[in-house]
Amino acid sequence: MTQNDGLDMLRQRLKQFVAERDWAQFHTPKNLASALSVEAAELLEPFQWLKNGRADELSVDQKQAVRHEMADVLHYLILLADQLDVNLIAASLEKMAINEKRYPVANARGNAKKYTDQTKPK
Amino acid sequence: MTQNDGLDMLRQRLKQFVAERDWAQFHTPKNLASALSVEAAELLEPFQWLKNGRADELSVDQKQAVRHEMADVLHYLILLADQLDVNLIAASLEKMAINEKRYPVANARGNAKKYTDQTKPK
Amino acid sequence: MTQNDGLDMLRQRLKQFVAERDWAQFHTPKNLASALSVEAAELLEPFQWLKNGRADELSVDQKQAVRHEMADVLHYLILLADQLDVNLIAASLEKMAINEKRYPVANARGNAKKYTDQTKPK
Amino acid sequence: MTQNDGLDMLRQRLKQFVAERDWAQFHTPKNLASALSVEAAELLEPFQWLKNGRADELSVDQKQAVRHEMADVLHYLILLADQLDVNLIAASLEKMAINEKRYPVANARGNAKKYTDQTKPK
Repeated sequence: MTQNDGLDMLRQRLKQFVAERDWAQFHTPKNLASALSVEAAELLEPFQWLKNGRADELSVDQKQAVRHEMADVLHYLILLADQLDVNLIAASLEKMAINEKRYPVANARGNAKKYTDQTKPK
Repeated sequence: MTQNDGLDMLRQRLKQFVAERDWAQFHTPKNLASALSVEAAELLEPFQWLKNGRADELSVDQKQAVRHEMADVLHYLILLADQLDVNLIAASLEKMAINEKRYPVANARGNAKKYTDQTKPK
Repeated sequence: MTQNDGLDMLRQRLKQFVAERDWAQFHTPKNLASALSVEAAELLEPFQWLKNGRADELSVDQKQAVRHEMADVLHYLILLADQLDVNLIAASLEKMAINEKRYPVANARGNAKKYTDQTKPK
Repeated sequence: MTQNDGLDMLRQRLKQFVAERDWAQFHTPKNLASALSVEAAELLEPFQWLKNGRADELSVDQKQAVRHEMADVLHYLILLADQLDVNLIAASLEKMAINEKRYPVANARGNAKKYTDQTKPK
């Protein structure tokens, strides 16, 4: 799937980075999932006290930090996908097809209930 | 950057999915970062009690659930990147360059200290 | 309920700390839940690469950091409980009674399946 | 320290619950920290799409779920504290004393900068 070009390139570079440092020994799927969760929380941190939660409430430094935390999340996601033989693009399309059926446009449109009922897309 | 082809395709489809349901009103960067963090924890959940943390300790159902949770994490990451005007491939390459300098191969190779000291790649 | 003595004392002190700084304006239940989640991830961080996950794999500094992260988690939990009028001791006893029924000793004893099936106590 | 009465009572009951089911084998500090983080995210979930983040935006069912998720967080915190020989009340008072010095009232009062700069109490 040529659509994986960017992710494949990142995967190759990340695996090389890890191999050069002999760090694969730390990268069990459990540990990678744990690290991904920690990075996701670090990404959440600059947003947690914002009144409106908008990008313009972040400082320039925070925006750059957020940019790098997003990269960290993506890196652990790619390394985990590599170990679990998950094609991220294919898995995404598959999940999107599920969500299309779960939340038909006719029911969902302008229907905040999906969200207030906490049955948001999963 | 043609390397974004797969992620760009997903981004377009996700934005269409959200627009058709009028759900953008819920998607402040803060809320998206929060949702990403919740999905990351759901991804961690099936791994949390595993003895060795390896993929072969997961059931077939758990593997499929993990696959879909990874898709959820990626979706919120892409939607957040879209709102913050972050090119995920470019941000990843930028962060990798930082990590290359932070953890030189000569120091890091076979050096678990990086990990035991909790100064892992961020 | 006199059993809340310790938690009540902490709650009073935390509320005074917040009031003196005029920080209640930031402490919506949503923001407190978000901060609690971020602190929980910071608590997880020193453990994430450990081989066996035991306390003796942490350095003295890490143990002290863990101790303080546990305090942070408790603080946000107490502040959130205060806003939601939740008595933490009563809620705990209530949840424990649910778990007693959900996982009868006869079925659960020596039965790792509860954990490998990811149907752990919630 | 008599102030631990409520937490000590919970700790005793939780340890008995775990012992009766022979579940201590799953409860390494790493796994408990991981479970605590997962429960914290489940606690965050009902709040994540709320406009204002206030308690009155939750349904009755969500409030009950939140109550039980708070109990889950507390349970894993107590079990982790037990394994790490951490007295939660003492650790809390210790951390509060640190925060008192880190955020003097004179500087912090009415000063949202502490929060917008992301240098919130840790």
